[in-house]
Amino acid sequence: MGQKYTTREQDYSKWYNEIVSRADLAENSDVRGCMVIKPYGFAIWEKMKEILDKKFKETGHSNAYFPLFIPKSLFEAEEKNAEGFAKECAIVTHHRLINDPDNPGKLIVDPKAKLEEELIVRPTSEAIIWSTYKKWIQSYRDLPILINQWANVVRWEMRTRIFLRTAEFLWQEGHTAHATKAEAMEEAALMNRVYANFAEKYMAMPVIQGMKTESERFAGADETFCIEAMMQDGKALQAGTSHFLGQNFAKAFDVKFTTKEGKQEHVWASSWGVSTRLMGALIMTHSDDDGLVLPPELAPIQVVAVPIYKSEEELAQISEKMNALGELLAEKGISFKFDDDDNRRPGWKFAEYEAKGVPIRLAMGPRDLQNGKIEVARRDTKTKEIIEFNGVEGYIANLLKEIQENLFRRASDFRASNMREIDSYEDFKVKIESEGGFFLAHWDGTAETEEKIKNETKATIRCIPLDRDAEEGLCMVTGAKSSGRVIFAKAY
Amino acid sequence: MGQKYTTREQDYSKWYNEIVSRADLAENSDVRGCMVIKPYGFAIWEKMKEILDKKFKETGHSNAYFPLFIPKSLFEAEEKNAEGFAKECAIVTHHRLINDPDNPGKLIVDPKAKLEEELIVRPTSEAIIWSTYKKWIQSYRDLPILINQWANVVRWEMRTRIFLRTAEFLWQEGHTAHATKAEAMEEAALMNRVYANFAEKYMAMPVIQGMKTESERFAGADETFCIEAMMQDGKALQAGTSHFLGQNFAKAFDVKFTTKEGKQEHVWASSWGVSTRLMGALIMTHSDDDGLVLPPELAPIQVVAVPIYKSEEELAQISEKMNALGELLAEKGISFKFDDDDNRRPGWKFAEYEAKGVPIRLAMGPRDLQNGKIEVARRDTKTKEIIEFNGVEGYIANLLKEIQENLFRRASDFRASNMREIDSYEDFKVKIESEGGFFLAHWDGTAETEEKIKNETKATIRCIPLDRDAEEGLCMVTGAKSSGRVIFAKAY
Repeated sequence: MGQKYTTREQDYSKWYNEIVSRADLAENSDVRGCMVIKPYGFAIWEKMKEILDKKFKETGHSNAYFPLFIPKSLFEAEEKNAEGFAKECAIVTHHRLINDPDNPGKLIVDPKAKLEEELIVRPTSEAIIWSTYKKWIQSYRDLPILINQWANVVRWEMRTRIFLRTAEFLWQEGHTAHATKAEAMEEAALMNRVYANFAEKYMAMPVIQGMKTESERFAGADETFCIEAMMQDGKALQAGTSHFLGQNFAKAFDVKFTTKEGKQEHVWASSWGVSTRLMGALIMTHSDDDGLVLPPELAPIQVVAVPIYKSEEELAQISEKMNALGELLAEKGISFKFDDDDNRRPGWKFAEYEAKGVPIRLAMGPRDLQNGKIEVARRDTKTKEIIEFNGVEGYIANLLKEIQENLFRRASDFRASNMREIDSYEDFKVKIESEGGFFLAHWDGTAETEEKIKNETKATIRCIPLDRDAEEGLCMVTGAKSSGRVIFAKAY
Repeated sequence: MGQKYTTREQDYSKWYNEIVSRADLAENSDVRGCMVIKPYGFAIWEKMKEILDKKFKETGHSNAYFPLFIPKSLFEAEEKNAEGFAKECAIVTHHRLINDPDNPGKLIVDPKAKLEEELIVRPTSEAIIWSTYKKWIQSYRDLPILINQWANVVRWEMRTRIFLRTAEFLWQEGHTAHATKAEAMEEAALMNRVYANFAEKYMAMPVIQGMKTESERFAGADETFCIEAMMQDGKALQAGTSHFLGQNFAKAFDVKFTTKEGKQEHVWASSWGVSTRLMGALIMTHSDDDGLVLPPELAPIQVVAVPIYKSEEELAQISEKMNALGELLAEKGISFKFDDDDNRRPGWKFAEYEAKGVPIRLAMGPRDLQNGKIEVARRDTKTKEIIEFNGVEGYIANLLKEIQENLFRRASDFRASNMREIDSYEDFKVKIESEGGFFLAHWDGTAETEEKIKNETKATIRCIPLDRDAEEGLCMVTGAKSSGRVIFAKAY
């Protein structure tokens, strides 16, 4: 109430920024393009990390940590990778500050403390990791290496947006080494499936698993798997990528192993990552004009209870009930907050937890107390019910599951109604503007056509879906033969 | 066997490096002063993190994330802090690489991509955090702020040693803001107690809680609490520090709040941190000439079982027993590994798990199988027993507790026998060289005397113990009055 917020309809981009701020997730910092992730936002990221980390370990990976800095000579070793990131690197050139002789109390870079070799702040860690793997790998017995790292990386992006594209972001990067091409490829495919499962089951965000076209691949990869999600404005968001790196890094860093048969061969590689960008995807998939909407699986607070009272005695009675309920919910592993802050009115609290996307809000007043009832409000549908207080913990547990499912269903329905096959490029050019969404179209497989479409419409090929139907067709632009449809969309 | 390793007696420093390498904990990287933390080492650090993170949350703190970079103008705002770190900063000056026109395939820093303002890679985050808190704090209602961050930091150290002093290291840094001096001071004291509890209960490492003298304080702090541990060479290791920052950062960044009474006052602050240095402390507290020794609370593998067999059938029988045992141990929350790798002999495995510090090693051969027995070997005492297999899970659970206690007792005994009161500076100068350890001595409270002792003996005041006895005495150097003993030692 009171303050008017921007709706999705009015200005999607402004709406997004307001949600980030209203839900107290993050803010821009004093460092160009870098964000501060605030406690509530970080708590969601921590939940994501915890679940993903468990999945990585279940699939045989261990965590490790490699240096933040990459010496320039290592950085440039794999040429395509270096070329891909050279334009957006933070570069350390000096290692000391000294007092500014002209400005007492101020510091200047000490020109005498210039590094012999510049250090690149990692935009991704293949170079430093493969220069390390070289020392670790001699024989087939040393393979596979299945390592993941949780880290910060820096890409000097010119246009930044909180969570979606920031100069520094947090991510995990898996880096694996294998004896065979098939094994490295299967690893890349497996981890893309892990990402898809995470997105759908925990984020309640439907994704399309696919392969990138050559021009959209990671710099240095031979194949890039990805998961693509549709945001509420119909644009695509690349939520995770998993790369088959071939022998590119092994060749750049001369990493060979002795096979069982005694031959020397270059090692095969994969790398895969998801980042704090997932926070942006989460926000834009579910939230509405009243604030953030969180799937219960990722909500730091799953249930909040607000007491409505006039007297201290009423509050005491409600508190007693709520504390008992809190214990029952804790037994079920449900996170619960009883907000008895006396400085805020119930209406303020309702709006606050709505903005923060808490899946279930309970309210109890004197009448509920008398009747043995409690009000249960769902964040996703914004519906309320008055429920028998006894046994409400079971109702809540079920409702959390239902909310999780409903969010996934809603997002899936939205995607289904904004994804269509298209065969005419003229139609495509109109509809990508007027309607947006995902377009399944035939494409002749050339980078030229892809480039032309991108230049003329800003739409890119998001992926070649893994599960696409084999379907003979003609490229919507050139009329050349195609053996299946690919997904075009504008993207974040 | 076979390979000869350095003993503590022969060369403590070389012994330490060998332990790090033999246990596969970490290694030096291709980046000067930066380490690679390998999976086994990182697994120990993850256990530390998990326990500490839980303790921080239990004491009311939330995690958040602040930028890696600090613009120079913010960095220099708190002058003492800036001065303390200026000499060892990694400084980002450029944001792009371009192709080297003279060397195809090579890159050079693009001189056109010079940053308007240099960015310091955080050596600690007070500056960036307090410039952020300024936006968050208006009223007493916004206080306290209790935030922790897990992050990497960079201090351009000239002499580095794995875990103990590296250019980049991992740590947590708590940064809190309070309405009163007393509250900020109590927060700093509380977190030092949390560190002490963690060190003693989980690392099995006895620590002395104390205050730093002015010259040993954190740059920008008014008081520094610390925990100091004794390594097996008698040297001290500062394992954690917690700072009362007064209003220094609030003044530097002009962070004021409106009190309940409507007055404007500067905010009070604390900050506190422990780092991957704890790994070094852990290694040097317990390990012996045969390798790493880990307290069970921090061991990634608490129990390892090695089968001794000739036939496949024997292996199958042993495996069956071991898998059953593994399930029983899992129910007790005990991590267990059954190493049935056929490529390695039992002797090799014994040495390997000894080097890796696994607290309990089980072995089972055909005779044990027949007799319903199992061999249980303790890493801490290197003793073995043959035990009834049935019910061994209970024996193991108790033994893990006993090992944890024994390590703490052993380290405490060692410290007790290497800590002495001393009253003569002449004696001190001799004994600090010949015997090492901690010396409890009277000191006149001046920085001059402290400096003189440091210059003449390399010993520093590790701390003024919190629980020291009030004892009138005379400074061992100047003979001036002192009201209690302080701890002198050489330190890491």
